Amino acid sequence: MTQIAVLIGKDFEDSEYSGPAQAFKDAGYRLVHVGLKKGETVTGKKQATPVQIDMEADFANPDDFDALLIPGGYSPDNLRAHKGPVRFVKQFMERDKPVFAICHGPQLLISAGKLEGRKATGWKSLTCDIKYAGADFVDKEVVVDKNLVTSRQPSDIPAFIEASLKMLEAARAKAA
Amino acid sequence: MTQIAVLIGKDFEDSEYSGPAQAFKDAGYRLVHVGLKKGETVTGKKQATPVQIDMEADFANPDDFDALLIPGGYSPDNLRAHKGPVRFVKQFMERDKPVFAICHGPQLLISAGKLEGRKATGWKSLTCDIKYAGADFVDKEVVVDKNLVTSRQPSDIPAFIEASLKMLEAARAKAA
Repeated sequence: MTQIAVLIGKDFEDSEYSGPAQAFKDAGYRLVHVGLKKGETVTGKKQATPVQIDMEADFANPDDFDALLIPGGYSPDNLRAHKGPVRFVKQFMERDKPVFAICHGPQLLISAGKLEGRKATGWKSLTCDIKYAGADFVDKEVVVDKNLVTSRQPSDIPAFIEASLKMLEAARAKAA
Repeated sequence: MTQIAVLIGKDFEDSEYSGPAQAFKDAGYRLVHVGLKKGETVTGKKQATPVQIDMEADFANPDDFDALLIPGGYSPDNLRAHKGPVRFVKQFMERDKPVFAICHGPQLLISAGKLEGRKATGWKSLTCDIKYAGADFVDKEVVVDKNLVTSRQPSDIPAFIEASLKMLEAARAKAA
């Protein structure tokens, strides 16, 4: 079964987790919530959506997953203050496996040093950070660059899901 | 009377506002709270400390102030999604007036394009952003570079206040 790692911490943007998570589950993918502390319940910053952490980032191995989802909100900034989540994202990118990052999600890609030379988008407050990090910032609802899918904000969720599912299906077809 | 602009928005780090604000008031400085909407009350992310906004950033003029304080927390990232706060910080830096930024405060300096070639510190999650923005990141409790005072986190507050007050006194002595 295809497994998707969801890298998530406290104060995530509820809809940027719930929307893609539901769509991926509906499409038959299994989600594993990777965070700072196994068993901990983190909540969204607006509707306090609860998410229980299944696995600590320190022990997560990209080889066990087929894709990585990084919801936005304050979660990415909280996670990137720790080594485990940054290492996990870095390894995912180095293996060219599908990475889906929305809103503040690209903050983790910046800390992993993996936006250099890439086309990407993100929440408007990150525009300067993304450009300084060496990426070509594109102001579009979804930007697909090789293994990387990025979007800007909650209103981009439908386009973000569509592009992510398309990439997952392509990877599944290739593996079959 | 010497006026200090405090650039502040929702979900600021309570102690990074309260500590310096009290110290500046005790030293005889007047604080003007600059934010997104005049009259609005914004609150801290931990203790929900209330702060009423005195002036909108869109209408704030650095010439009316002697220094700028930027507390951390989620406030700087919320503010830098808007043009007014970024323009205000940019103009402050261009006039070489004292700017005191702690924790996530440097995010506003990055968006203003004003960290290039500077020595600075900030919250650990911003290390990469600060370096990518062209600054020399220094992992110390307080870094003073010309008009700019930066610190990393709440535990640095005493050193941050001491360096900021020293700079304010020097500016006051020079003006007298």
